[in-house]
Amino acid sequence: MRFRQPLEAALQLSELSREGGVPIPTIKYYLREGILRPGTRVSANRAGYDESHLRRLRLIRALVTVGELPIATVRDVLGAVDDPALSLHEVLGVAHHALAGGPAAPAGSDEMADARAEVDRWLDDLGWRVKDDAPDRYELAATLATLRDLGWKVGVDVFSRYAATADELAAWELSQTPVGDSRERTVEAVVVGTVLFGAALTSLRRLAEEHRSAARFGG
Amino acid sequence: MRFRQPLEAALQLSELSREGGVPIPTIKYYLREGILRPGTRVSANRAGYDESHLRRLRLIRALVTVGELPIATVRDVLGAVDDPALSLHEVLGVAHHALAGGPAAPAGSDEMADARAEVDRWLDDLGWRVKDDAPDRYELAATLATLRDLGWKVGVDVFSRYAATADELAAWELSQTPVGDSRERTVEAVVVGTVLFGAALTSLRRLAEEHRSAARFGG
Repeated sequence: MRFRQPLEAALQLSELSREGGVPIPTIKYYLREGILRPGTRVSANRAGYDESHLRRLRLIRALVTVGELPIATVRDVLGAVDDPALSLHEVLGVAHHALAGGPAAPAGSDEMADARAEVDRWLDDLGWRVKDDAPDRYELAATLATLRDLGWKVGVDVFSRYAATADELAAWELSQTPVGDSRERTVEAVVVGTVLFGAALTSLRRLAEEHRSAARFGG
Repeated sequence: MRFRQPLEAALQLSELSREGGVPIPTIKYYLREGILRPGTRVSANRAGYDESHLRRLRLIRALVTVGELPIATVRDVLGAVDDPALSLHEVLGVAHHALAGGPAAPAGSDEMADARAEVDRWLDDLGWRVKDDAPDRYELAATLATLRDLGWKVGVDVFSRYAATADELAAWELSQTPVGDSRERTVEAVVVGTVLFGAALTSLRRLAEEHRSAARFGG
């Protein structure tokens, strides 16, 4: 007697590829890299895939194409998503850590140290609860040091308007987080939100600048 | 009689390197690529550099490190900065074009075409004056198509909150543009503003999310 192929492993690799919009060699690469769980063996030389594979494949594609994350970073982020011991806050921290990446340290480490101390003091004054080793502290300090290097005579409060905007937006974003969903869904929504809406905000700021610049400088 | 070395070409390559915080081989690469103007010949085998070289070198470094732009993109942006025939609005357009870069088109071009049409209609409704071929139209449509691909049942108005924030910010940013400076200074300020404050906003949004997530999900 032959067993019926279980419904949940109903997708062949070729179907997973078509449905997920990812070429087969790329899927095989994700399987080798361990960022996509192996399929269920359905015959001697064939594996079957289910909805969870398709869902994960789409998430990987989103992080790679829209988020422009390298595969090693995707692995870190998905590892956190799949770790039930981590709180939502901790998963978000891993995602932020991975997203920040970080530019090379600019020359002139005295200037950089000064900028970093200023950023830390300023975030404290704002009352923001942010980990001491958050890479974005460094990124912000590097941006401040670079502005000064370009001759801008500015303190860290040159970012005040941006901080107010970011805080308002983040408060709203967090209030939108679905509650009552499974942990898996919620965590995914938070990661997708950070990455995809971050990309959307970046694009919209440029489009808005173009619109406002047309008004101001003529087009 | 020997001529005195002109004051304006007073920097040797090694000094330019130290002051600019860029290694000599990298400077030579920039010279070869034509993104840094050649120095003035001050003797048979030595060129001298001036403040304008130093200034340009720092700008290149800012675009490469904080802006994370590839050299080919830096060349396009600086070409626009140096072209006196371009209006400020046009220079900003070139910078935005270069910054958008653009992810690969996601599979499922019907979905993408739908998303693109929706984005175009929406920007029209917002009354934003944005070029038809602005790459960020495409980026935004790709983000929308990706969200739907991930199972989010959303229309383009999922971005409304971000558009309002971006527009408010851009209006303020443009109002800060220095007037009365030389064209060179103003154009530089606009390019630096887009790139560096864009990086700052991205970092600040992540920091604010961490802060707000600590409050909501506990840390």
